[in-house]
Amino acid sequence: LRIEIIAVGSELLTSHYLDTNSLYITGRLNELGLEVSFKTVVGDDQETLLVALQNSLARSNLIFIMGGLGPTDDDRTREALARVLGRPIVLDRRLLENIRAWFRRRKIRMSPANKRQAYLIDGAQSLDNKNGTAPGQWLETGSHRIVLLPGPPHELKPMFQESIQPRLERFRRSYLVRRVLKTTGLGESRLEDMIQDLYPKSRDLKVTLLASPGQVEIHIASASERSMSAADIKAERLEKKFLSRLGDRVFSISGEDLESVAGRLLRGEKKTLAIAESCTGGYLGHRLTNVPGSSDYFLGGILAYGNRAKIELLGVPEAVIRKYGAVSPRTAAAMAEGVRMKMSSDIGLSITGIAGPSGGTPRKPVGLVYIALASDLGTDVSRNLFWGKREAIKFQSSQKALDMLRRYLLAEENSPSKKPAEKK
Amino acid sequence: LRIEIIAVGSELLTSHYLDTNSLYITGRLNELGLEVSFKTVVGDDQETLLVALQNSLARSNLIFIMGGLGPTDDDRTREALARVLGRPIVLDRRLLENIRAWFRRRKIRMSPANKRQAYLIDGAQSLDNKNGTAPGQWLETGSHRIVLLPGPPHELKPMFQESIQPRLERFRRSYLVRRVLKTTGLGESRLEDMIQDLYPKSRDLKVTLLASPGQVEIHIASASERSMSAADIKAERLEKKFLSRLGDRVFSISGEDLESVAGRLLRGEKKTLAIAESCTGGYLGHRLTNVPGSSDYFLGGILAYGNRAKIELLGVPEAVIRKYGAVSPRTAAAMAEGVRMKMSSDIGLSITGIAGPSGGTPRKPVGLVYIALASDLGTDVSRNLFWGKREAIKFQSSQKALDMLRRYLLAEENSPSKKPAEKK
Repeated sequence: LRIEIIAVGSELLTSHYLDTNSLYITGRLNELGLEVSFKTVVGDDQETLLVALQNSLARSNLIFIMGGLGPTDDDRTREALARVLGRPIVLDRRLLENIRAWFRRRKIRMSPANKRQAYLIDGAQSLDNKNGTAPGQWLETGSHRIVLLPGPPHELKPMFQESIQPRLERFRRSYLVRRVLKTTGLGESRLEDMIQDLYPKSRDLKVTLLASPGQVEIHIASASERSMSAADIKAERLEKKFLSRLGDRVFSISGEDLESVAGRLLRGEKKTLAIAESCTGGYLGHRLTNVPGSSDYFLGGILAYGNRAKIELLGVPEAVIRKYGAVSPRTAAAMAEGVRMKMSSDIGLSITGIAGPSGGTPRKPVGLVYIALASDLGTDVSRNLFWGKREAIKFQSSQKALDMLRRYLLAEENSPSKKPAEKK
Repeated sequence: LRIEIIAVGSELLTSHYLDTNSLYITGRLNELGLEVSFKTVVGDDQETLLVALQNSLARSNLIFIMGGLGPTDDDRTREALARVLGRPIVLDRRLLENIRAWFRRRKIRMSPANKRQAYLIDGAQSLDNKNGTAPGQWLETGSHRIVLLPGPPHELKPMFQESIQPRLERFRRSYLVRRVLKTTGLGESRLEDMIQDLYPKSRDLKVTLLASPGQVEIHIASASERSMSAADIKAERLEKKFLSRLGDRVFSISGEDLESVAGRLLRGEKKTLAIAESCTGGYLGHRLTNVPGSSDYFLGGILAYGNRAKIELLGVPEAVIRKYGAVSPRTAAAMAEGVRMKMSSDIGLSITGIAGPSGGTPRKPVGLVYIALASDLGTDVSRNLFWGKREAIKFQSSQKALDMLRRYLLAEENSPSKKPAEKK
């Protein structure tokens, strides 16, 4: 089986748009143990579309063609494919009635052009479109399976799930299970050094690292020819090895973001949080409040961007800033303690640093960031040297702050002072 | 001239990665009046790579091939292309010396595998790579121009600029000038209604709208067969028509973001800003501080996520919240006035609303957001009903707040109370 995905649309040949549907289709195919051999993008122009289809039919035998099924003159995928296959297109009365009903339900006048969407390539089965008027088509010839899909993702995805996946089941080669372990606090190469000896040798168990500054994800793909549960067992065995090696450097095995993990722990421990941000300018608060329901534990914070705000709103002693500077462990600690007191929260979290591009000195370079966590156990301060551009430094700073919060809450959760009755 | 871009690399056939290099190359080609007809993605597998190259040579005559020029066994683009063309690959001693020197300069041991990068397809010209060891290649045959480029963007882009663009100059069909007008405050269809009658009929002047909730961009692409300045004149004439129709709904004609525009005006008017955020949770501050140098005018702010923070840190009267609610024009006004006073800023800007997904009621639905601006001229409040998911509502809220700030500062700039001597 040689698989090809073709995206049709002149906008995909400009410098503005990329075809992202193919990522979705590839993911679903991989779950069946199938891999894509070619991806093609071609415009609405008939001549080049015909050439692309001819080439694909010659080199691939399972072909997904997306886009160009709309009602306008630009939408010629149906006609082009019919011509290349040497088959007529035929009006399907049931389809026409469906399209008419679609417009009636929405009380919109149907344009005569929409009638074109009721034509099927001779021999094709039509595939229902719940979110639009362009039906998909599934066509089997002696040597080929060809699928026509609408371009808009919210039409394509449900159609793929409901009508295509069941039809692909008989091509299944294996069962695929994916696991994602998210880590923070280690760079890609250090993480790789720590776990490389655990990498599996077998072809049906693959490990991929996806790294960005402040976060490295370990993707496990486990395939089994026998069953989903066989794949699952292998994935879980490997995941356990990684977890015991990496310990609490892994903050999520379920896809959760760090802000959600921290939020879940705050909720579980019934703790409230207030924050004081300098160089991140609100980014930490933004991430915390991206989690629905965060108002249960996040009280708010103070953006102390200038020194006066640090002194007047957070109560950082002027002498501390004068002697040690706004970017210093003392100032970070005073900010965290100050916001905790001001807002009567259980935990105060602060960030102060130099996000660049200017403002750095040899002793305090761009990327130097102090982060402090204040609680009834006292105040912890971390010194960090982050890298990259302004936004990368802001992200790494917020990531480290959330991770300090997570570690503090994990320690609370496991604290021996808690009565067993309190544990779930 | 039929143009094709081929991206080689098995990672581009997974569900993780997209080829983005082709957007860059397409942009540069468009500037020469050239359009791309096909894009192909193929893996490292020799058999499919050979097929893809054969098809491309048969259907296109200017072909860009990216990736697969590295030193490892997976990198077989050179060999595959040589085979399809029926040409030998030959060792280039000068190239080999360059690669050796590259490693010497960096004091890294050169692996024997890197020698493979010194081979050229017979007849090809090598293209310097300033940021890596894989040289590019430019090959002209009777019917084809074929370009081999390294995959990493930081190697590809400088090579394209320095070695490819000059070689493409002789294929230039026209001169292209682009202009981008950024607007906020109008949806895509309302904006289109306002300017549609100005859309040019000519093929060499194109208008495209790129819309997202809270921002619509008008892209003008103007081509001239004669000269850059002829294209520029046409673009400017159309831009002026759009500007006089849309007025201050256009906030940027230079690519600037709204936060940069607002920041530039604050700096020009020598005004300082403090903010009070509720439902945006720090996102407005994050955007303001993404602009380097924002500490010159942005003093900081208060994230008053909970009601207690609104009352205690911003001085919003408890009675106002009890009577009108936290999401109300009165609370918004009190927040903006409160933060302006607390931080002694010229301007106070506040946001309070319901970002969802929960928390909405029939009278106060998800997406209802009040935004207030307080200054020595008094306090303005706007009522907004935004749509979409939590993050889209946060973006639209910050966008509207920045736009109110921009309009206030524009009015200040044009205020008759200013002495002419103060104007530049």
